[in-house]
Amino acid sequence: MKYFFAAIFSLLSVVFSAQENADSLAIRKFYTYHLTQSNTYENLRYLCKKIGGRISGSPQAEKAVEWAEQAMLKAGADTVYLIPCMVPKWVRGPKEQCMAAKGAIKEKLTVCALGGSVGTGKKGITAKVIEVTSFEEMEKLGAEKIKGNIVFFNVSFDAGLVSPGSAYGKAVKYRWAGPSKAAKLGAIATVVKSMTNANNDVPHTGAMGYDSLVKDASGQVIKIPAFALSPKGASMLAQLLLKDKNLQLYLFSDCQMLPDVPSFSVVGEIRGKEIPNEVIVTGGHLDSWDTGEGAHDDGAGVVQSIEIIAAIKASGIKNKRTIRSIAFMNEENGLRGGTTYGKFAENEKNKKHIAAIESDGGGLVPRSLGIDVGTDTLAMYYEKWEKLFKPYGVLITNGGGGADIGPLEKIGATQMSLNVDNQRYFDYHHTPDDVFENVHKRELELGSAAMTSLVYLLDKYGVFKK
Amino acid sequence: MKYFFAAIFSLLSVVFSAQENADSLAIRKFYTYHLTQSNTYENLRYLCKKIGGRISGSPQAEKAVEWAEQAMLKAGADTVYLIPCMVPKWVRGPKEQCMAAKGAIKEKLTVCALGGSVGTGKKGITAKVIEVTSFEEMEKLGAEKIKGNIVFFNVSFDAGLVSPGSAYGKAVKYRWAGPSKAAKLGAIATVVKSMTNANNDVPHTGAMGYDSLVKDASGQVIKIPAFALSPKGASMLAQLLLKDKNLQLYLFSDCQMLPDVPSFSVVGEIRGKEIPNEVIVTGGHLDSWDTGEGAHDDGAGVVQSIEIIAAIKASGIKNKRTIRSIAFMNEENGLRGGTTYGKFAENEKNKKHIAAIESDGGGLVPRSLGIDVGTDTLAMYYEKWEKLFKPYGVLITNGGGGADIGPLEKIGATQMSLNVDNQRYFDYHHTPDDVFENVHKRELELGSAAMTSLVYLLDKYGVFKK
Repeated sequence: MKYFFAAIFSLLSVVFSAQENADSLAIRKFYTYHLTQSNTYENLRYLCKKIGGRISGSPQAEKAVEWAEQAMLKAGADTVYLIPCMVPKWVRGPKEQCMAAKGAIKEKLTVCALGGSVGTGKKGITAKVIEVTSFEEMEKLGAEKIKGNIVFFNVSFDAGLVSPGSAYGKAVKYRWAGPSKAAKLGAIATVVKSMTNANNDVPHTGAMGYDSLVKDASGQVIKIPAFALSPKGASMLAQLLLKDKNLQLYLFSDCQMLPDVPSFSVVGEIRGKEIPNEVIVTGGHLDSWDTGEGAHDDGAGVVQSIEIIAAIKASGIKNKRTIRSIAFMNEENGLRGGTTYGKFAENEKNKKHIAAIESDGGGLVPRSLGIDVGTDTLAMYYEKWEKLFKPYGVLITNGGGGADIGPLEKIGATQMSLNVDNQRYFDYHHTPDDVFENVHKRELELGSAAMTSLVYLLDKYGVFKK
Repeated sequence: MKYFFAAIFSLLSVVFSAQENADSLAIRKFYTYHLTQSNTYENLRYLCKKIGGRISGSPQAEKAVEWAEQAMLKAGADTVYLIPCMVPKWVRGPKEQCMAAKGAIKEKLTVCALGGSVGTGKKGITAKVIEVTSFEEMEKLGAEKIKGNIVFFNVSFDAGLVSPGSAYGKAVKYRWAGPSKAAKLGAIATVVKSMTNANNDVPHTGAMGYDSLVKDASGQVIKIPAFALSPKGASMLAQLLLKDKNLQLYLFSDCQMLPDVPSFSVVGEIRGKEIPNEVIVTGGHLDSWDTGEGAHDDGAGVVQSIEIIAAIKASGIKNKRTIRSIAFMNEENGLRGGTTYGKFAENEKNKKHIAAIESDGGGLVPRSLGIDVGTDTLAMYYEKWEKLFKPYGVLITNGGGGADIGPLEKIGATQMSLNVDNQRYFDYHHTPDDVFENVHKRELELGSAAMTSLVYLLDKYGVFKK
């Protein structure tokens, strides 16, 4: 490529009114700020490199709370406050092990424990492996075949789907619910193929939950150890099973769930100058899994939200409404931060949350701002605002929101999200590869710019209702 | 992120006709083929890893021609033929050197020669450096200040522009035309800041051209050595100049332009079954710069175009019109392949080229299909086809084309291009980092899927005219 570059976005006969012109200029200034002056990338560097992985209840998560408080003050928040919440404290323990044994031949496979899983005990677990590709297949085999064995959920991540997020949506139930469903049939452990299109030796952790209805004879909830195999590990195991159905698998983990500990979500606020009782929330989650640095998931959403404060302050615009940038705690394995902020907001009788925007899809290139409203109302946003975002390659699409801001829906906050291109997201998601180096500076900044622009419009015009 | 994924593309009340339904299904099948069965990524691996960088006239470029011929046959082309062209043969020679000397302190800076540049001679060049940020600034200084010195074009790559392609468009004249403009004022060499938003120590090569009107007293065209500094090298040089305006810079290169040699563009064709005289071209360029592997630029466009043949063959669809997948030679420093194919097409009296699609923006995530027609005609494409691409996150936008297919415009081929998200493109462009590992499998495949779908529609319906 020598010279030629075509526009990826065109404006088919768009005419701006004077008002739209002013908004267009304001948005242009926000983009320039984010792309040339912002602290977003350096904040992410600090959070990833100086603090690192920060699973709820860990010393790193505590440090991240202190850091977020300072970063929000530096960004120019009028006030920063902590919303306490009790969080689960799950600890992974020493490196997990997995070995397939076929006679004298032993094959090491790369695994990690799923978040929330119990450990295997010091001696580990050795048993026969039953491979299934669906819950239906497992149910058909029944307790007779499953009892006393390890279930291997070899479920494909559907590469044919254009959105890897959709493939994740289809496959993740095997990670979350697989262990209890297998335990119900007498399985003693589970391994699941990692949730990714990648084909490498990196295992993906993520939350699993024990079904409180699956109990043993004594009425205790049955908890069996749950693991994820790397994509290569899963392929290897499937190949070995083709050769020997009686293959033995050895699994070891020493993870455990400790009692809940106190933690905090961090709220940075710039008070509204005209309608301070109306609140616009923007946020991401401060906790991350322990195996990486929580760069895309979700350091990105946190630093983007913090920088919205800085961008509005730098613009000199006096916001009418109150803007809150929130670093939520414990999205990954409990949602305690989102839940307690929801309750806090419900009890703030002098405040009304009108909209909430979440960024939790990674620091990747923005594709759209999702707004979760009916088609008629969406058409209003579309008509009034989409042309403002077109020069930046950002659409307005239906559907939007996120786990942390979900509880704000019932108190009337329109749910919105920054939606990014997620082709690369599941290369990193919940792995040791979710590190600062895998976030692109400009892509991260463009996300924050799109969110700032949406906050600006919401502050100026409020939300639409039809 | 645990569960939540919003759509990045929405269909606001789209209703498909039966015809559109059939097209929608065909396109869905093409996407599934590309994402799950295609050979695109493995072809790119071979081209990058087994052949590597392939500047026109090099042994690697010759190997690439042989490989492309075989790859097109394997993909299922009815016939593959070579279109000969004479290409420039520029050779870089041993590693370039650059050293800033301030008294006893010597500072090594990372440079590369620009493609087409003459060398410095074995002893190199040592002279004072005159830093300018524009041609205007250089003209003001005039021959008095410039003569006998090295000109340093320290021109910023505008980070505030959302499209790095636009920033490139603004800055690249200093690479291409800077040497002759400086030579006209008596400069003895030039260094230009690399064309990138990145801030690392990697220099970006690329074509420069000597202005045939800038001659010495004897009537010879003046050719001075031209270099690019890495971004860090440029920053360092600017800092050193702040401290000492009389800084001496040493430059060494031993590159040279040899006589033209024969080479080829490669054309793979599937003949049309109903209207074989109408031709649809799709292509990328086979040559690359020598410093990297030519992965994004433009191995990607070549393997995407080859796979269009395979996808159409796999679909069982009998194409009405003739489809040609072309691997053009010598886009980077001469455009001889594009030019000779243009002449070849002009002379094919029994053929009419109706459309040409170029992919030369990198193997990155597709954002739009650009079509270079008037607004009224674009509206027809928009109305009829855009909804078919929406589920895949691809728009139809105005403007489109590329250097290699440019010559086909005058014989009536509508100019089109695959336009990709280019935030990352200039991290790799014309550098040692343009390697296979920096291309994402799915992003590459999605580009080929979008192009195949466009070829399918063009084959079925032809081009629109208003």
